[in-house]
Parts: sequence; C-alpha cells; structure tokens
Amino acid sequence: MRVNNQPQTTLWCESATQTTFIIDQTLLPHQLDIIPLKTLDDFCHSISAMQVRGAPLIGITAAFGLAAAIAVNPQSTAIAQAANTLIATRPTAINLRWAVEKIQASVANVAEAQRADVALQHATRLRQHDIATCEAIGEHGYQLIAEQHRRNPNKTLNILTHCNAGWLATIDWGTALAPIYKAQQAGIPLHVWVDETRPRNQGAKLTAWELGQQGVPHTIIADNTGGHLMQHGLVDLCIVGSDRTTAAGDVCNKIGTYLKALSANDNNVPFYVALPASTIDWTITDGVKDIPIEEREAEEITHMNGVDANGQLHEVLISAPGSAAANYGFDVTPARLVTGLITEHGVYSANQTHLAELQNRVVNAQ
Amino acid sequence: MRVNNQPQTTLWCESATQTTFIIDQTLLPHQLDIIPLKTLDDFCHSISAMQVRGAPLIGITAAFGLAAAIAVNPQSTAIAQAANTLIATRPTAINLRWAVEKIQASVANVAEAQRADVALQHATRLRQHDIATCEAIGEHGYQLIAEQHRRNPNKTLNILTHCNAGWLATIDWGTALAPIYKAQQAGIPLHVWVDETRPRNQGAKLTAWELGQQGVPHTIIADNTGGHLMQHGLVDLCIVGSDRTTAAGDVCNKIGTYLKALSANDNNVPFYVALPASTIDWTITDGVKDIPIEEREAEEITHMNGVDANGQLHEVLISAPGSAAANYGFDVTPARLVTGLITEHGVYSANQTHLAELQNRVVNAQ
Repeated sequence: MRVNNQPQTTLWCESATQTTFIIDQTLLPHQLDIIPLKTLDDFCHSISAMQVRGAPLIGITAAFGLAAAIAVNPQSTAIAQAANTLIATRPTAINLRWAVEKIQASVANVAEAQRADVALQHATRLRQHDIATCEAIGEHGYQLIAEQHRRNPNKTLNILTHCNAGWLATIDWGTALAPIYKAQQAGIPLHVWVDETRPRNQGAKLTAWELGQQGVPHTIIADNTGGHLMQHGLVDLCIVGSDRTTAAGDVCNKIGTYLKALSANDNNVPFYVALPASTIDWTITDGVKDIPIEEREAEEITHMNGVDANGQLHEVLISAPGSAAANYGFDVTPARLVTGLITEHGVYSANQTHLAELQNRVVNAQ
Repeated sequence: MRVNNQPQTTLWCESATQTTFIIDQTLLPHQLDIIPLKTLDDFCHSISAMQVRGAPLIGITAAFGLAAAIAVNPQSTAIAQAANTLIATRPTAINLRWAVEKIQASVANVAEAQRADVALQHATRLRQHDIATCEAIGEHGYQLIAEQHRRNPNKTLNILTHCNAGWLATIDWGTALAPIYKAQQAGIPLHVWVDETRPRNQGAKLTAWELGQQGVPHTIIADNTGGHLMQHGLVDLCIVGSDRTTAAGDVCNKIGTYLKALSANDNNVPFYVALPASTIDWTITDGVKDIPIEEREAEEITHMNGVDANGQLHEVLISAPGSAAANYGFDVTPARLVTGLITEHGVYSANQTHLAELQNRVVNAQ
C-alpha cells in the first residue's frame, strides 16, 4: 500500500545489518516513525506495547524476533526460552504461536551453526507468504463485494469495519480491508464506516489513516453507532478481522465485534470475517469458553492521547478521577452470527463441517 | 444526592433575583462550576451546548427558560416564539416539548400581567414533581433489584448502565440510577459497569463521577465491552434511561443502547429502561421510523478533552487528520428487546396494551 504516495510495508529486514524495521503504530496517525528492532527485548516490547499489532503482523514480527534470538544463541534450550517469551507477549492472537512454532520447526533438524541463517530465511518466507495470503483474501472478498455491486450497480456500497484489519495489521494489503482495496482498484463505488474502536482507537487512528492514504471514501463513527446505521439501511456489508478462530467458526476479534455481529444479524446485514487460515485454532471449538481474553491496563480507557491545535501531543485523563476501569481486549462472536469466513483459500461457512474441508486443504498444502 | 458530602441538585431558581443556577456539566468531572442563567439565550445555549443534558433536566431547564422569557415579554406571540426556540435546541428528547407546553398551558388563560409569576410557579412545581417522579422510579426499580438479591443474597449484583441517567440527568435521584441509589441505601451489595458512552463520555465522566461521590462501587468500561461481560455471566441486570419512548414501548436513548439490548437479549440478561411517563410520546408507535435522531458535530468524535498530569485541560485531536466523522446522538431499541419500563407509576411491559393502561392512568391523574 501507499503512504504519501510512496509504496510502504509495515515490516522489513535489512539482512546486511540484521536489523528489522517497523512502523511505530502507537504514534500514528500523528507521526510516521520507522524504528529498528535488533534484540529479543526490542521485538517483545514492540509486540506488547503494540508498536506492531494485528494478528498477522504480530506473527511475522515474532518470527523475525525469534530469528534474531537464534542469531545470538542457537542452542535448542535458548530457542525454546525465546519462543516462550515471545508467545507470552500477547495471549489471544494465535498467529503469534503459529509463526514462532514455524521458525522453531524450521531449525529443529539444522546444525546450530546454520540455524541463524535458516531462521532468517524462513521468517522472510513467512513475510512473503503473508503478503500473498492477504492478496488472496482480497481477491476472494472482492468477489463478494462485486456480487453486491452487480445486484445494484448504481449504489455506493457501504461497508462497516471494526478495529484495524488493514495493511497495518499485516505486511501489506490487510485482511478485512484487502477486499475493499481490490474493489477500489476495480472501480466499484464504495464508502467505509470506520468504527472508532475504543479504547485504543485503532479504527479512528489507523484504519481511517490508511483508507485516507489510499483515497478510499470513509467516515469515522463511534463504536455505538453501527446498530443505528444498520437499522436505517446504511450498511450493506460488514467485514472484520480475527485474532483467533475456532474449528467451529467462532471468531475472537477486537472487543465490540460481537455487538456489531448481533446488530448485523438483527438487520439482515451480511457479516464477514477475513482471516488467514493461520488464525484458526484447530484445537478448540467453543470460543467463549476456550479463548483467553487479554486484559490490558486501565489507563488505555481512562487516558487518551492526541495532538492539540498547535500539533503538540498530550496525554489527558478523560474519565472521572479515581474511578476504576476494566479493559478487555477481545470478545468472541459465535459462529451462528458469521455469514462467512474469507480466507486465502476461498470463502468458508462458519461451521465445523465446512472448516474441516479447509483444514484438510491446509494440512495437505504443508 | 451529594457532592463532596454536601447535598446538591442540578438546577434551582433564586426567585429574588429571578436567576436559575445550573451545574455546567461540560466541565465535569474535572471542575464543578455553577453558572447563572437569566436570558432565553442563556437557557437555549445551556441546552444545546449540553451544559445541562438528560431528558428530564432538559425539560425542567426549558420550563424555567420559558418562564424567564415570559418575564421579559408576556404576550402570547412572544411566548409561542420563545417556546419554539427552546424546543428547537434538541430534536430528540420529548420532555423538552412536554415541559414547554406545560408552561404555555399554565399561562394560556392568565392575564398578561400575572403570566410571569404563574409560569415561574409552574416551573417550580415541575421541578418538585421531577424529584418526586425520580424517587418513585427509584422505589419501583429497587423492587426489581431486591428480587434478584433475594434469589441470591450472597452475590454482589452487577448492573450495567449506558450514558448518564443519574441525578445529573434530572433534578435529583436520576432515572436509571435511582433504583441503584435506593438499593445502596437498603444495603444490597452491588457493583455498576459504567459504559464510557462515546462520543461525549457521559458514562466515564458523569455516571462514574456521581457514583463515586455517592460511594457506589463501579468500573468504567469501553462501550464495546458489555457483550463480552454478558457472555461470561458478569452482568445480572441492565438499566438505562430514555429520551423518548413510543406508545408501543420502543426506546430512543443514547446511541449504543440498542447494541447492549441486543446483547442482553442474546444472553438472557434482563434489560430495563427507567423513565418518567413524560418521556413517552403517545402519538407514535414505531420508534425507528418516527423518532428524529439528532446529528451533532463531527468534532465530538474527532476531538477529546481531558486534563494532563499537571491538571491542565487540553482538547486534542484523537483521530486521523482529514478523516470525516458522523455523530448520531441516539438510537432506538425495539420494544421486543426491553424487559420492562420502570416508571413513576410502576413497572410496565414494553407493549402497546400495557402502556395504554399507563396512558389512562396518566391522563386521569391530570
């Protein structure tokens, strides 16, 4: 995708200096800072402090993080320790574990002296694979949008999304936004309702910014607003991302997704979830029961940062002083509320039978 | 209710100086400023700028505003003009029109020379009536809480509320929070989940503040969070307010209420709405179709104010620069999602048949 009309990705590695570069997403949209990651600590901090965020990007970051750790110490026990440290940074996203285990597996039968090179090559392949995966998600999701467009070619399609599952959440293209970028390229008239996504405002800060940079018409709304819009026919389609999906199609995504899915269901609005197959946790079926929900600091609710009229950044207390706040990062949308799962292998129904076909396909491809 | 352990109401009139005093709620919780209102312009500004807010308080403010206008010009055409100006300040709340029409009716058959006195007396009676109404709502709602408490006496009851329908939204007691204050006085162990209520944060700023001042245990949550809490059995009861209710029981309340009602319904959590009968618009039955939804400035979404670590107030841009925002103030919760309407006359089912009984009772009482 593009920033100030220049091509940009969220993460890349300079092999000469063995340095990985990321966009510090905590400073967006007010500042575009590229920061280097070298040590395992750098990588862990970048994930836990949400300088990188979004399930796919977290996974790739962790992959390069483990490769960096292996370059320092290629012994198996050290690798296992580094892997555990990385996995512990965010408890909900499943790609994190998936990517870390991929790197571990890639070096398991390799002599210690070669492990650093092999791990870095494998992380680089995962990065390329993520780009291809997201583009494929975009193509499959685009078909759904094109179908709605064909039914009513003169209408601007209104698509609602929650949080940021755009290119900033991946290496490039995004998951939920990839179909939108593909539809834009195909000339389909569309407009995106961007859920602000409290408490961290990934919608208002990141999704709005990247849609703006790509020239996609969009409007920010409070998270409270989607139901009203759907009641009044102002949403044609919802597309969101997923941090972890069960084998039965329950979707764990940014807190508040469940409420939008309920509203979509109540108003007959299609509700799609776009995800790489790597976000599916084949070991569980009951998302509400089995997925640990990350609890984060109260300050993310009670405080907010932004720039004043002079462009100066401030962090301000926005709630009643002394009142406690609880900050759950994700919720689970039961499969019954999901119209379909848009994956790199096609659109699947959110049920165990259809997803088992996807699982066979994924396993066979490995 | 109490502020810093002193009794306080939201609005009172000093008859000697013909001045009405209000709390400027836009400065809460960071600052408790009492401001005087004298002219019709003062009153209109206080309503449209949301220095006063909450359907009942808006109504009483408008009543005193019309009385102030009548003191300046008691001619019928001037009164009608002032009434229209007041009604136009906020389009959704029905009490505003109700209170203004009450004052107009009170002076209709009165000689011009007496109109100012009669209007002020009537506004004062409406104010007293609001206090009694809210306390009665509190008593009826308390019975519902006490019933849940009796079923499980050792459990702390978790009640979720949206926006501020506390004493700050009325003269005293509140609507949705009145049952909570009554339950607190009766010693029932309870805890309130306070929806932040974007974009204006009336929950995080006002509800949290007034619950804190009254010593009621509470926790602020992002508006996105209620669904997750309900899925995990962490909400026993929802109580919200209403800005306008149809004769069939549809409830128009702060944007996002509908999403919480959907979630309560999906998780078998009772969803109650507390309201004075004056918020019922007996002329309409279809809330989604018939209630005009106020659209406010985009800046309420894109900007946020709060205090920094030095206690200094800042307004900051919190979203992507250049991105548009849409700001709908209310949504409509269909009657089918409402467990019951807690009124000053008792708890009514949200359907046309039961509400017709309430209408007869209200009409007979007039």
